[in-house]
Amino acid sequence: MCNACITNAVKKHMISRRDMFRSAVALGAASVAAGIVTARPALAAAHGTVVDLTHTFTPEFPTFDGVPGLTMEQTVKFDESGYQLFRLTVDEHSGTHIDAPLHFTTDGTSVDELPVENLVCPLCVIDIEARAQEEVNTMVSTEDIETWISANGDIPEGACVAMHSGWADKVGDASYRNDADGNFTFPGFSKEATDMLMEMGVAAIGVDTLSLDPGNSADFAVHYSWLPSGRYGIENLAGLRNVPAAGATVFVGAPKHGGGTGGPARVLAVT
Amino acid sequence: MCNACITNAVKKHMISRRDMFRSAVALGAASVAAGIVTARPALAAAHGTVVDLTHTFTPEFPTFDGVPGLTMEQTVKFDESGYQLFRLTVDEHSGTHIDAPLHFTTDGTSVDELPVENLVCPLCVIDIEARAQEEVNTMVSTEDIETWISANGDIPEGACVAMHSGWADKVGDASYRNDADGNFTFPGFSKEATDMLMEMGVAAIGVDTLSLDPGNSADFAVHYSWLPSGRYGIENLAGLRNVPAAGATVFVGAPKHGGGTGGPARVLAVT
Repeated sequence: MCNACITNAVKKHMISRRDMFRSAVALGAASVAAGIVTARPALAAAHGTVVDLTHTFTPEFPTFDGVPGLTMEQTVKFDESGYQLFRLTVDEHSGTHIDAPLHFTTDGTSVDELPVENLVCPLCVIDIEARAQEEVNTMVSTEDIETWISANGDIPEGACVAMHSGWADKVGDASYRNDADGNFTFPGFSKEATDMLMEMGVAAIGVDTLSLDPGNSADFAVHYSWLPSGRYGIENLAGLRNVPAAGATVFVGAPKHGGGTGGPARVLAVT
Repeated sequence: MCNACITNAVKKHMISRRDMFRSAVALGAASVAAGIVTARPALAAAHGTVVDLTHTFTPEFPTFDGVPGLTMEQTVKFDESGYQLFRLTVDEHSGTHIDAPLHFTTDGTSVDELPVENLVCPLCVIDIEARAQEEVNTMVSTEDIETWISANGDIPEGACVAMHSGWADKVGDASYRNDADGNFTFPGFSKEATDMLMEMGVAAIGVDTLSLDPGNSADFAVHYSWLPSGRYGIENLAGLRNVPAAGATVFVGAPKHGGGTGGPARVLAVT
């Protein structure tokens, strides 16, 4: 199936799914008219489960450059002051974190400028764990997207599409970052796949590894195309095996320091 | 109306509201059975508006102790490396941020340990803006809670109850923190009010000022009771005038550094 065919098929899916959403909204309006409690205002009460997609961030958390991404200095002590707090030194691109467009551009959107409507997204999880066990630098491909759509329907506009490679389980081990020879080894997205996701109006991509591009990437093709397009990425996601392939909503707690290129984020899914 | 009366009235409200939620869930189940799209899996698509309750965090953002809470050092430059990033130095309790129980205890819950189900909450906003314009150290009282309940029904278990004092608009001005004589001046919660919220099973409180306690507090009574109870607080909220008193859901993107006493958070409401 050619890419254009897929795109057309996807558009068709999207139209039909939009009609379904319209029906749901209409149903909600009818419910209000009838005096029935609708799910929308009771969102928190109506949700099933909150799933944490965030690793605990520690000075030992693996980083791309191998330098600790966090230090914590206790600047106020409880026994002296009756309360306590820390001063943190944080490298923006460490822990479960955001890559804003400004990370790979000179004038792109900074992390505080990301549109808030792109921080609450339908979550689509593409599972490549089985393949990643054999091919450590494997990439999410256009075929993986096609397979996902066949199984789950359309990828909604404004979605966050996450790669689940199983890598989150390795985070305490050197193999999260390197092979035995010290080469970067982890899965990522292919540029062809993220180009396809761009056409579908996807808002964000996420990976459970150190980089949007695979470990053996020589050109950071995804970083240099996805981020300059104005979209953002999430790296070092956790917990993706605890959410469904489709149907969850992800809340991306991107940091909001002015002019930042990214930074540690709390990422939660609601199923 | 005595506190016990209010508590009983609230319990009664809660029971009836719970029954309404049950009806809503049953309605959802019936919709699934009928092949109709329910709002739950289409959460992100079905929501109305995402409202940012987070101030942009800058080195100039006012802090309790007057010391800048953020510095940013560019450690990788685009013209040298083809990408760019910053190293941040962050005082945990600056910007829009979380107070975890560990901030005012020696062994309480740290910010990374906050239960995730308490980070997605029904949002209740208590508006004391009119009074705060006259009384700069005014407090959310039990009467304010009673008035809110009369107007909006119960405060749901697990809610986040936020004080809207209008202070967020002053954030660029010295009056956000001090009066002309240099005294701390800003509204907060009274201990009596937060004790009542504890009885109602509220998960979190939030303020649009520098502290959960008012500026002229001599004893930090709310900090020393609310936080040791295992609950958390949010300080320096923004945007509360853009959400309804009841009906929104708040996503609290608490940071997840291990053993932290709090830290800057992205807080978003979905209406």
